[in-house]
Amino acid sequence: MKIIVDAMGGDNAPFEIVKGAVMAAKELDTHIILTGRVEEILRCIEKLGLKDLPGGVEIANATEVIEMDEEPVMAYRKKKDSSMTVGLNMLRDGQGDAMVSAGSTGALLSGATLVVKRIPGVKRAALAPILPNAAGGVMLIDCGANVECTPQYLLQFAYMGACYTEFVRGVKSPRIGLLNNGTEKTKGTQLQIDTYELLEEARTAGKLNFIGNVEAKDVMHGVCDVVVCDGYSGNVLLKATEGAASFVMKEIKKTLTSSFKTKMAALLVRKEVYDLKERMSADKIGGTALLGISKPVIKAHGSSNAAAIKSAIRQAIDAANSNMAEILQKNIAE
Amino acid sequence: MKIIVDAMGGDNAPFEIVKGAVMAAKELDTHIILTGRVEEILRCIEKLGLKDLPGGVEIANATEVIEMDEEPVMAYRKKKDSSMTVGLNMLRDGQGDAMVSAGSTGALLSGATLVVKRIPGVKRAALAPILPNAAGGVMLIDCGANVECTPQYLLQFAYMGACYTEFVRGVKSPRIGLLNNGTEKTKGTQLQIDTYELLEEARTAGKLNFIGNVEAKDVMHGVCDVVVCDGYSGNVLLKATEGAASFVMKEIKKTLTSSFKTKMAALLVRKEVYDLKERMSADKIGGTALLGISKPVIKAHGSSNAAAIKSAIRQAIDAANSNMAEILQKNIAE
Repeated sequence: MKIIVDAMGGDNAPFEIVKGAVMAAKELDTHIILTGRVEEILRCIEKLGLKDLPGGVEIANATEVIEMDEEPVMAYRKKKDSSMTVGLNMLRDGQGDAMVSAGSTGALLSGATLVVKRIPGVKRAALAPILPNAAGGVMLIDCGANVECTPQYLLQFAYMGACYTEFVRGVKSPRIGLLNNGTEKTKGTQLQIDTYELLEEARTAGKLNFIGNVEAKDVMHGVCDVVVCDGYSGNVLLKATEGAASFVMKEIKKTLTSSFKTKMAALLVRKEVYDLKERMSADKIGGTALLGISKPVIKAHGSSNAAAIKSAIRQAIDAANSNMAEILQKNIAE
Repeated sequence: MKIIVDAMGGDNAPFEIVKGAVMAAKELDTHIILTGRVEEILRCIEKLGLKDLPGGVEIANATEVIEMDEEPVMAYRKKKDSSMTVGLNMLRDGQGDAMVSAGSTGALLSGATLVVKRIPGVKRAALAPILPNAAGGVMLIDCGANVECTPQYLLQFAYMGACYTEFVRGVKSPRIGLLNNGTEKTKGTQLQIDTYELLEEARTAGKLNFIGNVEAKDVMHGVCDVVVCDGYSGNVLLKATEGAASFVMKEIKKTLTSSFKTKMAALLVRKEVYDLKERMSADKIGGTALLGISKPVIKAHGSSNAAAIKSAIRQAIDAANSNMAEILQKNIAE
């Protein structure tokens, strides 16, 4: 198994990326190809206290870097020798089994679609992060790749999400919910009303375990395994959840440091609250899968540290092991 | 000042509603008209340890009740003698200055629109709850009344939200944000792109303090005072926030009761954590204003207790005192 890792993408690149990749090579027994500027990557290796590239890690030189604030499609087209583009070309050419990048989401999505290509029959690739929740994580698909959707796109998202959740995450017969502003089937805009019908047909045909509409308030409480939504409202769902969770954690911290008495309490629960914060962190569950692309591409969070990169690499390995693209292609063709 | 209160609407009706109304009459120095079944209301008064209706509280008899699971428009049309309909008729006829109900949101919205009518020029009434946040509360408009919107509706929502926030909540030159999946003005669906232009024009003309697009993750952190959105995504934003906050609070509780050590800590911070939970509770900030209706109508949360009802009554008083409908009508006409 060979995983291509974009060493230059993300807020903490290249050091945390290189560190995470080295950890993964050692602990996950996988081969890593780091794409990026050789000298910079070697400096990171040195900073890690290593004399040379460790076993299982190699470098593919790439002289350019796509910055987070560049216009995605233009950046991808202009910078032919960027760490991301070089990685995607290698993935297309079979020099690696999956790719991980913490760089620009838009550029990665455009690049993956244009270079690695979509699975035949898939209309749109989707961003599918996994949100930590009461039931061990729920996939949201789509979360921003496609702000305007059709019922057909959403139906495909449901199949892609179900397939990933079953074959990569190991959840048998995953429960698929349609994000809506109420549970009745007449709820939502025309998009949700029409999509409901398609999903209901798929359920009747025994192809999807569609459980109906789900409300945003129930997503964290584990009501389903995959939430199907257009990219615009999926983005609102994801970010509102992140914002609210971080706000409450911040308030908890303030509360615990507000007086001598609460500071005493804080000393007693420091570890437990830290653990909770870690569990709430999306990074720990892994990166965002770009579903619908013919080979596994995982977008790690922009602020990923080494542990998050290692976790995204593990996810890439699982995705590559699952042969998901083939299963999905068969599914879509039917 | 006379506030009409639907005594029969909500999960805890009629007792908590009557209790909250009695508290409000006493503490807020206002006159209350309770609509509902006289005998049931009087039984609540008795249960409160009172011999008779206290000063400032009267009853308007209504024999029917609209249930939460009834189809809103049908329920409103069929039950001519419901506590909600009787109240709305009295509001229209000037027998009260504002109305509060914890009953079915849909029925209240239909009823208010059909009986009390919209402010001339207002295309759609909107549900505008206030979410507790770092800056003392942010209004979301719309949150479910209109799932399909046009840029013109959203522009009016911006004016209505600004007007309420300035004249009822007392925030000078409130900051208006457009909910979007990124801050760049090219973000979002066609609806957001077109609305951005209208809001930008209003800003240039000095009519609105439009601060641009806002992301869902920043709403709780106080980035603006009013978030403009269509009812579908507003509903997702509101409920995702509620769901995430309640999930984290539940996890905190679990953490604090997981061992002897953490239970000791819990004893020390019990009051503080309870206070935080209260602050996070939307009820404390008040009910949801139905903006665009020609007289103030406040929807209290379905699960409101007496304190939440009192708080919604206070909000109704503030709204009635503000002459918001007139100001808004002038604004819209311009």
